Amino acid sequence: MTRAHDVAVIGCGAGGYKAAITAAQHGARVVVIEREQVGGACLNRACVPKKALAHIASLILQTQTLTGHGLTGRVSGDLAAAIAFKNQVVDELRRGLPLRLKPLAVETIIGEARMAGPNHILVETAEGKRRIEARSIIIATGAAPRALAGCAVDHDRIVNADSFIPTLAAPLGDVLCVGGGALGVEAAFFLHQFGGRVTIVEEKGRLLDLPAIPERASNLLERSLTSLGVTVCTQQTVRSARATHEGVCVEFADGRVSSFARVLVAVGRQPRPDDLGLDDLGIERDANGFIVTNEFLQTNIPGLFAVGDVKGGPMTAAAALHDGRVAGENATQGAVRQRNYHQVPLVVDSVLPIAAMGLSEELAESAGFTPDTVYIPLRASVKARAYNDATGFIEIVHDQETGQMLGGCIVGAGADELIHIIALACRSKRGLWSLTDLDYGHPSWSEDVGTALEPYIRTLTQTADTVFRPGIYAAD
Amino acid sequence: MTRAHDVAVIGCGAGGYKAAITAAQHGARVVVIEREQVGGACLNRACVPKKALAHIASLILQTQTLTGHGLTGRVSGDLAAAIAFKNQVVDELRRGLPLRLKPLAVETIIGEARMAGPNHILVETAEGKRRIEARSIIIATGAAPRALAGCAVDHDRIVNADSFIPTLAAPLGDVLCVGGGALGVEAAFFLHQFGGRVTIVEEKGRLLDLPAIPERASNLLERSLTSLGVTVCTQQTVRSARATHEGVCVEFADGRVSSFARVLVAVGRQPRPDDLGLDDLGIERDANGFIVTNEFLQTNIPGLFAVGDVKGGPMTAAAALHDGRVAGENATQGAVRQRNYHQVPLVVDSVLPIAAMGLSEELAESAGFTPDTVYIPLRASVKARAYNDATGFIEIVHDQETGQMLGGCIVGAGADELIHIIALACRSKRGLWSLTDLDYGHPSWSEDVGTALEPYIRTLTQTADTVFRPGIYAAD
Repeated sequence: MTRAHDVAVIGCGAGGYKAAITAAQHGARVVVIEREQVGGACLNRACVPKKALAHIASLILQTQTLTGHGLTGRVSGDLAAAIAFKNQVVDELRRGLPLRLKPLAVETIIGEARMAGPNHILVETAEGKRRIEARSIIIATGAAPRALAGCAVDHDRIVNADSFIPTLAAPLGDVLCVGGGALGVEAAFFLHQFGGRVTIVEEKGRLLDLPAIPERASNLLERSLTSLGVTVCTQQTVRSARATHEGVCVEFADGRVSSFARVLVAVGRQPRPDDLGLDDLGIERDANGFIVTNEFLQTNIPGLFAVGDVKGGPMTAAAALHDGRVAGENATQGAVRQRNYHQVPLVVDSVLPIAAMGLSEELAESAGFTPDTVYIPLRASVKARAYNDATGFIEIVHDQETGQMLGGCIVGAGADELIHIIALACRSKRGLWSLTDLDYGHPSWSEDVGTALEPYIRTLTQTADTVFRPGIYAAD
Repeated sequence: MTRAHDVAVIGCGAGGYKAAITAAQHGARVVVIEREQVGGACLNRACVPKKALAHIASLILQTQTLTGHGLTGRVSGDLAAAIAFKNQVVDELRRGLPLRLKPLAVETIIGEARMAGPNHILVETAEGKRRIEARSIIIATGAAPRALAGCAVDHDRIVNADSFIPTLAAPLGDVLCVGGGALGVEAAFFLHQFGGRVTIVEEKGRLLDLPAIPERASNLLERSLTSLGVTVCTQQTVRSARATHEGVCVEFADGRVSSFARVLVAVGRQPRPDDLGLDDLGIERDANGFIVTNEFLQTNIPGLFAVGDVKGGPMTAAAALHDGRVAGENATQGAVRQRNYHQVPLVVDSVLPIAAMGLSEELAESAGFTPDTVYIPLRASVKARAYNDATGFIEIVHDQETGQMLGGCIVGAGADELIHIIALACRSKRGLWSLTDLDYGHPSWSEDVGTALEPYIRTLTQTADTVFRPGIYAAD
């Protein structure tokens, strides 16, 4: 059976369903094909479960922060109940996802897809084979956790991003997180709060060694994890990890040997095997095997787009959602919208929530700006003081000549939401003024952003209006 | 001794210090005169202490929400420790305020001010009399809690907004909040969480009977307070309250008589007695006795401005800060900035946090818009579900023809920060598009705003750009 669609999306994770929704909102007849569970890694194994676990972990910490300052008693983590709770939430949200697709007449097929030509897909479903024809096809099949030499993942004692959350079980005992990126520092926090004795090893000199994250954010995060009781070893790697009957025997690069109950290998992502037959179509891949796309998320094959982790670029749900919006629009409207990862916030929910977006001072300089960085510690924040939770800072990068907002990083409570007012201001032609002019609730963390910027606007020689470079933030 | 200043500010509360800072940032020589403690009601007796107490109250609730879903154990409120903590925070912040004024060379005088002419102030300080001369004078002396017939406040058993926080003490026992406005519902929540048995009586048919607050917000708040265990009686008033040896004997309008340990009279604000000699200068007052100002916050006396609760209009710290910015700028730059309370968020920290700003649908209609309201319940929010805290909603008012954002109300966790992305979008010429185009962290409450708006942008016939009415939000 052949059915003609405007857009077919392969993979119903964050990037896939966003592409499907966007295309359908533009009037396209859309089909989305998923071989496992709708929602993808983000809903089933990553963002959503982690958000639930991080929140519980954070509540434990917040109550401790106020013990003796207005709270008595003590709460602690109950991992088994937390897992049951997150399973329930994930199940409900997974059942709810088709309800978001249905009003848009997006058809969902559960089955294994294989490309049968640039505009044709064969799908093996439980009810038999189906042939899908579509003007545009969007590949959104994600990526696999990167393997680490010497650390063979058995999905039991040695787990990776795919099996870590699904196999979580109490008691946790000694846990090693290999990799101090987003997953490593997030996992370390909630594992500790649920009773684990956690060690992070990170190859680089600092945690979260990403261009968008300022070094002082990494340093503060390391100090906070350490004072919580997490052992952080930077510039350290694992030579081998071997599952034994009692646990995992780990040999580090410096020769030390330790034993852990479980090891989480969290060292990034790598392409999945090509089950779709994309290589037969001649798809272009980068040196790491990820699909190459242009600024419109088009691959080298006409009509074929790629979004999310399957292609190169930042591998977060927020980036996949961005891709989905871009590809969903371009697949229906022609090449009208360019991807721009500077616009996409990076959010990390560890002992200190961290959120960043846009250009760091270094990136801004290389983009031709004259950047200046506003820095305000949270101990200057009235709300943070009232919450007894004043560890962190707000950092905002802007252009010294024009006041154009270029990016920012927020470290501390509320960062995951607060980053969006920086994102909005980055897209405003009014630059810093859009935040210094704003009226804020008092006390609020948001007002701290405005207060931080106030002294700077007097020093500017031009207004953002006159020299705003829309290339960085394409919207305005 | 006479000293010439550009700007003198009488009163160092939120409105006063913001006016002083703004004027000084514009290069003015500024003096601020305070007769009691710097920081005013907001810092010493209202916003800041309330924020601290509300946070503790909220943490107790949040942990209960997750008990059995990942948390075990129990925390409860310790009022004595909370009071000690909030005193410490308030003291530190009060000591910190002069540090914000000092770099701007703002002189602070503690003493009783009295107008000696339109540009002259006499100040009685501990060191003697001083005469201040200033080109512009900004009155920021606040207001007094409104008295209620039959409820004589003794600042012991029958307290008002001024004495409520300073006299808080454990155990709380039965407490009556007279008035279901912001203070009433905020106090009711934290008093309950700290062990009080709380009753609210409200004259009107609903709690928070304010134009900016939609009725469904009031209804949901009432339901949440009631299920928490607070007794809410709307359309009920107090005929008399009489302090006895054991407590307070209260007679209600319907004839019922009850006894309470304490009564909080929270029925709004009224002008203070004219200690400044403003009436001798011939200052114009409204029917309620508040100072009349024009859109530049000028009084009828040339060079004399009034900000905050001393004049008519909304009586919140956020509004006073808005006023301070407006008057501080106008006093130094000429009449350049108009006040606009539609831009000022209203934030209420009760069992459900509530934040609102801009035009309600009704107000928008009477302003000539064709308003439509986007409504999304928090149970559609991934983050709210992951937090097991999905009571609430997001409501956004926009113009149906143009997509211009006009206002909104957020009910639920995070409202006090989230309102600012609505505020920013209301000032953007891109209207709804500024939020549907944005990239969000996932999951986040912020993304729920974008998701809620998505279906609406397709229905618009024009773009915000073509018919944006800058009169409502003056900035863009």
